[in-house]
Amino acid sequence: MSAPTSPADLVILGGGSGGYAAALRGAELGLSVVLIERDKVGGTCLHRGCIPTKALLHSGEVADSAREGEQFGVKTSLAGIDMDGVNAYKDGVVSRLYKGLQGLIKSRKINYVEGEGRLVSPTAVEVDGQRYEGKHVLLATGSYARSLPGIEVDGTKVITSDHALNLDRVPASAIILGGGVIGCEFASAWKSFGVDVTIVEALPHLVPLEDESSSKLLERAFRRRKIDFSLGSRVSGVQTTENGVTVSLENGKDFEAELVLVAVGRGPVSQGLGYEEAGVAMERGYVLVDEYCRTNVPTISAVGDLIPTLQLAHVGFGEGILVAERLAGLKPAPIDYAGVPRITYSEPEVASVGLTEAQAKERYGEVKTLVYDLGGNGRSQILKTAGAVKLVQAVDGPVVGVHMVGSRVGELIAEAQLIYNWEAEADDVASLIHPHPTQSEALGEAHLALAGKPLHVHG
Amino acid sequence: MSAPTSPADLVILGGGSGGYAAALRGAELGLSVVLIERDKVGGTCLHRGCIPTKALLHSGEVADSAREGEQFGVKTSLAGIDMDGVNAYKDGVVSRLYKGLQGLIKSRKINYVEGEGRLVSPTAVEVDGQRYEGKHVLLATGSYARSLPGIEVDGTKVITSDHALNLDRVPASAIILGGGVIGCEFASAWKSFGVDVTIVEALPHLVPLEDESSSKLLERAFRRRKIDFSLGSRVSGVQTTENGVTVSLENGKDFEAELVLVAVGRGPVSQGLGYEEAGVAMERGYVLVDEYCRTNVPTISAVGDLIPTLQLAHVGFGEGILVAERLAGLKPAPIDYAGVPRITYSEPEVASVGLTEAQAKERYGEVKTLVYDLGGNGRSQILKTAGAVKLVQAVDGPVVGVHMVGSRVGELIAEAQLIYNWEAEADDVASLIHPHPTQSEALGEAHLALAGKPLHVHG
Repeated sequence: MSAPTSPADLVILGGGSGGYAAALRGAELGLSVVLIERDKVGGTCLHRGCIPTKALLHSGEVADSAREGEQFGVKTSLAGIDMDGVNAYKDGVVSRLYKGLQGLIKSRKINYVEGEGRLVSPTAVEVDGQRYEGKHVLLATGSYARSLPGIEVDGTKVITSDHALNLDRVPASAIILGGGVIGCEFASAWKSFGVDVTIVEALPHLVPLEDESSSKLLERAFRRRKIDFSLGSRVSGVQTTENGVTVSLENGKDFEAELVLVAVGRGPVSQGLGYEEAGVAMERGYVLVDEYCRTNVPTISAVGDLIPTLQLAHVGFGEGILVAERLAGLKPAPIDYAGVPRITYSEPEVASVGLTEAQAKERYGEVKTLVYDLGGNGRSQILKTAGAVKLVQAVDGPVVGVHMVGSRVGELIAEAQLIYNWEAEADDVASLIHPHPTQSEALGEAHLALAGKPLHVHG
Repeated sequence: MSAPTSPADLVILGGGSGGYAAALRGAELGLSVVLIERDKVGGTCLHRGCIPTKALLHSGEVADSAREGEQFGVKTSLAGIDMDGVNAYKDGVVSRLYKGLQGLIKSRKINYVEGEGRLVSPTAVEVDGQRYEGKHVLLATGSYARSLPGIEVDGTKVITSDHALNLDRVPASAIILGGGVIGCEFASAWKSFGVDVTIVEALPHLVPLEDESSSKLLERAFRRRKIDFSLGSRVSGVQTTENGVTVSLENGKDFEAELVLVAVGRGPVSQGLGYEEAGVAMERGYVLVDEYCRTNVPTISAVGDLIPTLQLAHVGFGEGILVAERLAGLKPAPIDYAGVPRITYSEPEVASVGLTEAQAKERYGEVKTLVYDLGGNGRSQILKTAGAVKLVQAVDGPVVGVHMVGSRVGELIAEAQLIYNWEAEADDVASLIHPHPTQSEALGEAHLALAGKPLHVHG
C-alpha cells in the first residue's frame, strides 16, 4: 500500500450525475475534491440511461416521420433501420458529452481517480490499494438494472436496458417486462423501428406513478400505435427457446417473442462496498438519508439512485449540489421532491410536476381539476398529436399539479415547474398570453380556463 | 335599409385574433356582442398567417428529417414534395381549427354577421345596408401584406405571403424581399422543400428586431443551410421576364429567380372604412390608442394589427381580452409589450421575451449578459441543432431579456415569459434543477451560470 495522501475536503465515491455534480459544485466553492469512478464519469445517465435512450427515441422519431410523410405532403420512404448507424449516432452524442464533462472535471481541478473504490472508514475510500482520506465522504454509487426472481438475464434473449442499448440488430418482436418509464421508452423506440412490442405490467396502468389520466392517454396512444400491453399481469416464468423466448403470465397467458427486456426498475449499487462495515444505515439496499442527504454517520452523505428518492439524473444533480453547498457552509434548502419534473420520453411524451389528483385529494381533501384537450391547440394539430394538459388546484389556492401527454410536451414541463414551485395561482399564469401558435399555449389556455376565463375552450 | 336593431353592448368590426378574442371574452362576461367579419372568423392568423405557415414549416421539417435520416441511422429517402398533399394537410389543419372556432362563437351566443362592415357613426357599423348599433365599437380590421413602391404584385411571379401559401408547385428558386419573421419563415420552409432561396434585407441583419446575437446565430445557421441572403441591401427594381423575375439592388447586384416573395411587412387595413369620418385619430394608417386600447373617440376602441403595437396573434388576443374586460367593468392591467414572447418559426427557431441587450443598456445603463451554448445541452446534441440561450440581467436585478436560437426553442420561451413577467432573479430559477435531458435545461443552466454557480459550463 502506498503512503496515505493528505485528507481532501470531500471524497466522492461514484462519478454519475449525483457524484459529479457534487464534485463540480464543491470545487467551485473552494473545496478540495477527490472523485472516484470505476467506469466512466457521467454514470448511468450519460452512458447507459437518459442520453442514449433519448438518442434511440429520436432515431425512432425520424423513422416515424418518414413512415408518415405522406400525411404532410412529403414524399418520404423508410427502407429500414441501420442499427450500426443508430449506434454510431448514439455513441457520437454520448462521446461528445463525455468529452465535455471530462474537460469540465479537469478545468475545475478535481482529483479524478479511475478505479473500484471501497469505503474503508467513515472518512476514507480505498482504490487499488491507495487510500483517499476525506473530511467528508459522499456515497454516489448509483443503481443497476434489476431483474425478477427466477428470471435469468443472459444478455441475448433475456436482456436489461444495458444490453438493449447495444443491440446490433432490430429484433422482429420483443416482450417488455415493466410498463414504467424505461419500459415505455423502449417500447416506443422499438415500435418506431418496426418491432412487434408487447408490454407486461403488474400494476393496473402504464407509467403507474403518473396521474391516472396521463396513464390512460398514453395507453390510448400506444393502442393506436399498435403497441400491445397486458396490464395487471404478473409474470410466472420466462423460458428461452430455440428461436426466442416465451413469457408466461400468472393468468395463464403466454407470449412469444425474439427477446425479452426486463425493465422492472433499478436497484441501488451498495453491496460489498464497505457501507455496512462503516455503520451506514440502509434499507432494502438503499442508503438512508435525511432531507439534507446526510446518513446516520456524521462524515458520510449519500445522493442519487443509491438513496430512496426519485431515480432521475436531475434529482442526482440537485442532491449533489445540495451536499456540496452544505459542506461549503452555505445553507441550501431541502429539495421538494414533488416539485421535480418527471418525463417519459415515449411517443407521445408524458410529463408532470407536483401532485397527482389522487395525491392532492389526500393532502387537501377537495381539489379542482381542469383538462385542456390538445385537440384545441393549433400547434399540436400541426404535429398531429393527441393528448391533454391537466391541472390540479388546491381549492382557491395555487396550482399543485400539472400533467401532460402529447408529442414533445416534455419541453413544456419546465414552465410548469416554475408554476408549481413558485406557488402560482391560475390567474398569475392566465394573465400572460402565451405565444401563438405553440404547444405551450395549451398550458396558458388551461390556466385561463382554470381562472374562470376560458379563451379557446368550449364552455 | 331595414329597421335598426337594438344596440348591443359591443359591436366588433373584424373577426381576427383581436376581434374574436374580445367577442369571446365579452360574451363570457355577459356583454351582448355583434361580431362582423367580411371573410372568415379567425382572420389572418388562422387563414393566411400563423397557422398555415407553421404547417408548411412542419412539412419542411418532415422533408429535412427524411433528407438527413442517415445521420440518425434511419434509412429514409425523400422523393420530393407533393404540394397538393402539403396544401391538403395545411388546409385540413386550418379547417379543423376554423370549425372549432365557429362552434365556440356559436356556443357563446355571439351575434356573428358575415359581410363588409363600415363604421357609420361612433356607435354604429353598417353591413349590407343593415345597421348595427353598439354602446361601444371595437375596430379590429387587421392588416394586409405590404409591397414596396414601384413593385407590382401580380400574384404569380411577384407574390405576397397570401399567394405563397397557396402555391400549387415548388418553385425552383425564389427571392424573398425582407428578412424579418415572415421572410425568414418562408425562406426556411422553401429551402426545406428544395427551393434555391435568396433573401434581400435592407437592414444589416436578418430578424432585425431581435437581439443582434440571435440574428447572427440565425445567419450562421442559414449559411450552413445554404440559404443565401444579402444584408443592408435596398431593392432598386423588380422586373418580370419570360422565365421569372429579376431583382436589382441599389448596389448594382442583380438576382434572378422563378418568383419573388414580397415580405416587407404588413400594413393596417383602415382605408375607406369610415374611421376618419367618425373622427378616429390615425397615423400612417394605424389607429392610435392609449394603453387601454382606447381611441380618441370615447365609444371606440381598437386592437390587433390595426394599431401600432406588435403584430402578433397573441397580442391581438391580449388586447381583445383587455377591451372586453374593461367594457365589462373589470380593471385589467395594461399589457407590458416587452413581456410578450416573439417567435420566428424557421429552422432553427428564434425566440425572445423582454429586452434586447441594446434596449436594456439604454434603460439600465449597465447590464450583465450570459450566453449558454446549446453545444453543452444533451437534448440539443441529440437533435443535432446549434444555437444558444442568452440572458440579459439588470445588474443585481431581475432577468430582463431572454433570447434563444435553436431547433424547437419556440416552445421554451413560455418559461422565459414567466421569468420576465414575474421579475425573477437568476437565483430564483437556478434553484430549480430542470428536467434532464431536455432543451429546457439550457435555460436552467444559463440561470445557474448567471447566478454564479455554473453546472455544465466551462468556467
